[in-house]
Amino acid sequence: MFESAELGQKVTKTDFRRHEPVLREKLLEAEWKLAQSEASAIVLFSGVDAAGKGELATLLSTWMDPRRIVTRAYGPPSEEERERPEYWRYWRDLPARGHLGVFLSAWYERPLLDRVQGRISASRFDEELERIIAFERTLANDGTLIVKFWMHLSAKAQRRRLAALAEDPLTAWRVTKRDFRRLKLREELLAAAERMIMRTSTGRCPWHIVEGLDERYRSLRVGGILLDALDRGVTEGPARRAKAEADQPGPPAPAVRAAATPSLLSTLDLGAKLPKRNYELRRPKYEARLNVLRRRAREKKTSTILVFEGWDAAGKGGAIRALTAPLDARDYEVISVAAPTDEERAHHYLWRFWRRLSRAGRITIFDRSWYGRVLVERVEGLATENEWRRAYVEVNEFERQLVEHGVILVKFWLHISKEEQARRFRERQRTPHKRWKLTGEDWRNREKWDRYEEAVNDMLERTSTRAAPWILVPAEDKLHARLEVLRQVCRRMDAALP
Amino acid sequence: MFESAELGQKVTKTDFRRHEPVLREKLLEAEWKLAQSEASAIVLFSGVDAAGKGELATLLSTWMDPRRIVTRAYGPPSEEERERPEYWRYWRDLPARGHLGVFLSAWYERPLLDRVQGRISASRFDEELERIIAFERTLANDGTLIVKFWMHLSAKAQRRRLAALAEDPLTAWRVTKRDFRRLKLREELLAAAERMIMRTSTGRCPWHIVEGLDERYRSLRVGGILLDALDRGVTEGPARRAKAEADQPGPPAPAVRAAATPSLLSTLDLGAKLPKRNYELRRPKYEARLNVLRRRAREKKTSTILVFEGWDAAGKGGAIRALTAPLDARDYEVISVAAPTDEERAHHYLWRFWRRLSRAGRITIFDRSWYGRVLVERVEGLATENEWRRAYVEVNEFERQLVEHGVILVKFWLHISKEEQARRFRERQRTPHKRWKLTGEDWRNREKWDRYEEAVNDMLERTSTRAAPWILVPAEDKLHARLEVLRQVCRRMDAALP
Repeated sequence: MFESAELGQKVTKTDFRRHEPVLREKLLEAEWKLAQSEASAIVLFSGVDAAGKGELATLLSTWMDPRRIVTRAYGPPSEEERERPEYWRYWRDLPARGHLGVFLSAWYERPLLDRVQGRISASRFDEELERIIAFERTLANDGTLIVKFWMHLSAKAQRRRLAALAEDPLTAWRVTKRDFRRLKLREELLAAAERMIMRTSTGRCPWHIVEGLDERYRSLRVGGILLDALDRGVTEGPARRAKAEADQPGPPAPAVRAAATPSLLSTLDLGAKLPKRNYELRRPKYEARLNVLRRRAREKKTSTILVFEGWDAAGKGGAIRALTAPLDARDYEVISVAAPTDEERAHHYLWRFWRRLSRAGRITIFDRSWYGRVLVERVEGLATENEWRRAYVEVNEFERQLVEHGVILVKFWLHISKEEQARRFRERQRTPHKRWKLTGEDWRNREKWDRYEEAVNDMLERTSTRAAPWILVPAEDKLHARLEVLRQVCRRMDAALP
Repeated sequence: MFESAELGQKVTKTDFRRHEPVLREKLLEAEWKLAQSEASAIVLFSGVDAAGKGELATLLSTWMDPRRIVTRAYGPPSEEERERPEYWRYWRDLPARGHLGVFLSAWYERPLLDRVQGRISASRFDEELERIIAFERTLANDGTLIVKFWMHLSAKAQRRRLAALAEDPLTAWRVTKRDFRRLKLREELLAAAERMIMRTSTGRCPWHIVEGLDERYRSLRVGGILLDALDRGVTEGPARRAKAEADQPGPPAPAVRAAATPSLLSTLDLGAKLPKRNYELRRPKYEARLNVLRRRAREKKTSTILVFEGWDAAGKGGAIRALTAPLDARDYEVISVAAPTDEERAHHYLWRFWRRLSRAGRITIFDRSWYGRVLVERVEGLATENEWRRAYVEVNEFERQLVEHGVILVKFWLHISKEEQARRFRERQRTPHKRWKLTGEDWRNREKWDRYEEAVNDMLERTSTRAAPWILVPAEDKLHARLEVLRQVCRRMDAALP
């Protein structure tokens, strides 16, 4: 795989002088087109040591307008980074639409080194590569152009280059003992890299292997490939994206339910009631328990994420208040999900949720959540069919990463009947200090009840995973719903914090 | 000062039951009004241990709609927080317009404990209080309502309360040995707190001392004071803000310059020229030096911030590129300051710069900066006169905090004549790949050259501090300007990194 990048390819000074200005101008132009587009771009460098990855990243910022480029290199994760799933720092740094991100030692680095040094098995390595594929596909589907470079050197050239760097006092700092140690693992590295490149070279996010021996050669080559990718990716952007949409089969369409097949929602018993006396009697027990649990979570640095979805007026606010009453305000945060800000709109729709992941040991309560994509955005036509269909997979992957990181994730759907909603809307209209809660939109949403119901049923079916199951709460009776939420949160935290 | 909060004030259960629902409803209403307004609000709790600060923070989130409340408690700073000036984490957490922030152990905590434990002198303590006053004034001027509570207990009550908490297994976790140790320092604490409260009780950000013995009493009292503040602050908001504007004298108006008194800009010799040969000869020396320096900065974890301001077409982009060429892309970031995002608009104008402060050891290059407030925003009328006049003080304070934290801060004004600008505009129009750089706005700005010049002169005079002086760079000759920028950055980094 790497042979053609060990040939010692070179570009003469004269040739470089002739080609560089042209390439540079075209790259500037491509960058400008990117800035005007809906797309973003990621250039990722990986490869053997001393093959010029860092120099290339610098070069791109010199060639193009650095104001639209964000360069990120990753070392060992910081304290704050370790407190979130591994991909948190990559999500945080993703370029906004119109921008170019240059990533060094990013999401490939850790799995690759883990594999080379034998810390993970071949099958675990494959799993991690699957995760990368899913991540890059998610970005590509959202209009991010991804160009990946494996910078290569022959064994001899690499040894020479390291020695040369080490000798020159101006560059000696760039070579450490670690580099020479890693040289010994070259065969293992190349074996793992080959597998990595084969597995993760997808049609839309291909790897390019470039020989890094000659600075002029590698500069023109990388620049040329990038220009080509930008040119095709950005000018053909909309058309290409539409095609990607069409190609993407997406999960199979929801089965048309025979009249006899009940949906998940319709099987829910809404008759559950809890007399006030019983509520007052049983609540303190759960409150005390929850108080103990949240302290334990704090000590063990285990984060909890609670998701509340449900019909308008189903009582999400009340349930959240019942839940937070026994908590210490220092331990939790309620995030109310409304329309995204413009910064959020300039990124993948999951970006706004990634950025809100709390430090370790805290409880984050989402009042509405990432499920908006498959509920309101689907029904109101704010997302295309392919977009909301993809979202099931993306959400499951997002939640899997949370759960694997050790987050306690509990998702509630608060359910009421259409009649009960009408009753509550009317009550809100009558009560002066509740009137502001009711808008014309609520009445309009109500008219689409059936389509929302279909969306909810699909959501429950497709995103109730073993790691993150939905809990359906009959909320016709508010006290019953509140106690049920308290009880379930205690149960789940109890199980996770023995 | 604290005597009236040691009387053992209580509220009966009956009274509480009568008042609480009314207060709650009114608070909800006030919160709603706040959400609709341009204002934000901060409730800050400080006080003796065991006086109910945490419970009150929780209570507010229960009483009001927690979706508009962000509660923050601060422990020892994290690794990422220590890498920025102390106030970074507070700036980061400031509530957006329409939101309420509840702050526990915030900016008062560290200076107070440092003083109590004798780690800082009385005069140093006073200086820190001055910083707090400036910080709160900055926020108040921007429409933030600040309500501060000192929660108090008599010595006897405090001892009893701690003992009671320690006995009950459900609450014992809340009391640590540290609390009992701190009890011994009560006199020192109260002496420092008295000074703190006296100094920092300003007209717009007053302290309220509330006795924390009785839960019902303190809840109603804090709720009542907060309601009162919100009611007055938010309904009278615009009127009050206008009054504050009027009251604020602001720095004296720029002196009318006698024709004979030259401005800073007009004294700058624009004749400096550097032949290309000399440039190519001298540049490598500075580049090598800069490369050494940025590595040293990385090792010593010293951050560098470079600010570039100047006329349109003065060559900021070129100077930045010349500067970044010898740098490693992993070490620097170029931040191009354009129109603020809506999240940024929902905060104080300095918020967007605070949030971009990098981790330690990196170089951040601002292509245009916080000086937009006193340049374009002043001239184009985007900021009121009081707003841009205040900005001089606010910017100086911001930069002082950077410099005190050890940041190397260098500010460049790239200067060209009006004629040279015209020449460059025309050249941009002629060159195809430069044409996009020139917009109608550039020509319009040019018509206001004199007013911009006045603004620039005022800025240079008022914000060239000893800690952060402006460097005026004659940029009529591009090569001269680039070398001068390189030279000055080396000089300043050299001085700071011996």
